[in-house]
Amino acid sequence: MTLTNHQFRLAARPAGMPKDSDWKFTAEPVREPGPGEVLVEILYVSLDPAMRGWMNDRKSYIAPVGLGDVMRAGTVGRVIASNNPKFAVGDHVLGMQGVQAYALSDGTGLTRIDGGNVPLQLYLSTLGMPGMTAYFGLLEVGKPAPGDTVVVSGAAGAVGAVVGQIARIKECRVVGIAGGAAKCGYLRDVLGFDAVIDYKAEEVGAALGKACPKGIDVYFDNVGGAILDAALARLAMHARVVICGAISQYNNTGPTAGPANYLSLLVNRASMTGMLVFDYAARYHEAGRELAAWMAAGRLQSREDVVVGIEKFPEALLMLFKGENTGKLLLEVTRD
Amino acid sequence: MTLTNHQFRLAARPAGMPKDSDWKFTAEPVREPGPGEVLVEILYVSLDPAMRGWMNDRKSYIAPVGLGDVMRAGTVGRVIASNNPKFAVGDHVLGMQGVQAYALSDGTGLTRIDGGNVPLQLYLSTLGMPGMTAYFGLLEVGKPAPGDTVVVSGAAGAVGAVVGQIARIKECRVVGIAGGAAKCGYLRDVLGFDAVIDYKAEEVGAALGKACPKGIDVYFDNVGGAILDAALARLAMHARVVICGAISQYNNTGPTAGPANYLSLLVNRASMTGMLVFDYAARYHEAGRELAAWMAAGRLQSREDVVVGIEKFPEALLMLFKGENTGKLLLEVTRD
Repeated sequence: MTLTNHQFRLAARPAGMPKDSDWKFTAEPVREPGPGEVLVEILYVSLDPAMRGWMNDRKSYIAPVGLGDVMRAGTVGRVIASNNPKFAVGDHVLGMQGVQAYALSDGTGLTRIDGGNVPLQLYLSTLGMPGMTAYFGLLEVGKPAPGDTVVVSGAAGAVGAVVGQIARIKECRVVGIAGGAAKCGYLRDVLGFDAVIDYKAEEVGAALGKACPKGIDVYFDNVGGAILDAALARLAMHARVVICGAISQYNNTGPTAGPANYLSLLVNRASMTGMLVFDYAARYHEAGRELAAWMAAGRLQSREDVVVGIEKFPEALLMLFKGENTGKLLLEVTRD
Repeated sequence: MTLTNHQFRLAARPAGMPKDSDWKFTAEPVREPGPGEVLVEILYVSLDPAMRGWMNDRKSYIAPVGLGDVMRAGTVGRVIASNNPKFAVGDHVLGMQGVQAYALSDGTGLTRIDGGNVPLQLYLSTLGMPGMTAYFGLLEVGKPAPGDTVVVSGAAGAVGAVVGQIARIKECRVVGIAGGAAKCGYLRDVLGFDAVIDYKAEEVGAALGKACPKGIDVYFDNVGGAILDAALARLAMHARVVICGAISQYNNTGPTAGPANYLSLLVNRASMTGMLVFDYAARYHEAGRELAAWMAAGRLQSREDVVVGIEKFPEALLMLFKGENTGKLLLEVTRD
């Protein structure tokens, strides 16, 4: 029996928000795996803000996705055929296999994961890239000390929610910035953030002033734009600003809004440092162990927001940029 | 005989470039020093870009100058009367005694300097705050390694020229950005910079691309604005951006221009860190010794641009913002 693959391919480079016409949804037969190859049935596709950057034809930390290529994405799947001695049928694998239902691989970049002990979704979420990003970005770049005031934007997102919880574990005062009462309630009541700011309902600068009477020691930024500026204006001495992302700017058609308050770095002898999780690959294992232990102890909670059906990819991706997800946004691939 | 003091006092808070009407030039008799006081005849007044910030009524690293107060400034002077056992008549002293011809002090903040071995001007220049700023900003924040490409803006200014020369001593490739052929010629031909960029005659971004084929490892920024953005766009991996000043922005009437290319920090895992020389006060001695040794060995040159006559203060200050000085700008106080 020949399987049919479904794939989202990049049809055009978007200007601003990706449109339906920027994608081509293709169907093609899945060929048999060749020598050394495995065939993977993809179960979950990770939806990440960084994907928007990969769609631009611009030099960055990774090559752009080529026009006509399957859209790059993190994935969890199951091996359904194998000519590779490292992988057996039934193995679960983590990889960057793209927005498609099936993928062939020679095994490069595939990691076997334990599908028995924890839900598979966690490997794309708190035990995966978002969790690693939060862990290394906060601990290695932000360097929080007990008693520090840690502010995180995009706080109800996959990275932000973990940043805030780790900061709490490290005995910091944690302030989360998110959009809407539901997300803010989740951060305060479920995750135990010390204070929350609803940027859709409050003036962020004034609210930060109130929530951070001694200034901000660590600001973990996922959003850029006006919220970054508001945080810069309220830094404490020797503050550390972690630049993890700038989701408010990714769909700009004009230039990125630069942080007008950057001279606060000078006044406060503060630093602003960019981070990319890939630099910490050699230590993922260490972070994974600690994150899993915190989860097992009930000190760290993970939340996933799952959209079902690969055909929903274009609209699911937009949920990120509209701020409609709480926790890690995933696409679940279902089959007839 | 009663001496007459002449003083520049802040009459109004300027909008944009300081105007003559923002100053009040006052004359008043100098009173006798009281118990514990010294009377200092001021010889040189330091003119610094930071003075513009002190004129604003805005929280910063130091309190604003009050309306009606003598303008704050670094000074070198000579003790002409003393009721303080720590200072004798004839001693030369470094302090922050302001834009005036004479000053009384209880000795707080005054440092006795050696007026015999080196020209007094150097204590406001390469052996003073600008030299210390260059030394600690480059070495402690920029952390250049041999072979690194170091770019400095405001390169013909009091700080920039020292930054570039220290970077050369540390075996870096040094690129200076300055305005005009005369300054660029000085940097290249006299100070031995590896490359110079005349921002008034060249497109800085393209010129940086040519002068820094492997990207910028350390960018020491004195100017902000478009030049900071051009440098950010050309950072090498793990680059360090030192924010020392932003002279292009100090007379803005609108908001500061934020660096639109700040996401280059993320792409290149780079950092941008503000510095203030005062934080290194405990180590000035160490820096002074090393800077003086480099000068004695002919490896470090100092240049001062001296305007004669305290009454020239308002126009002399503007020279900084118009980029008319080469080297450290000083005001020499003369007496009838």
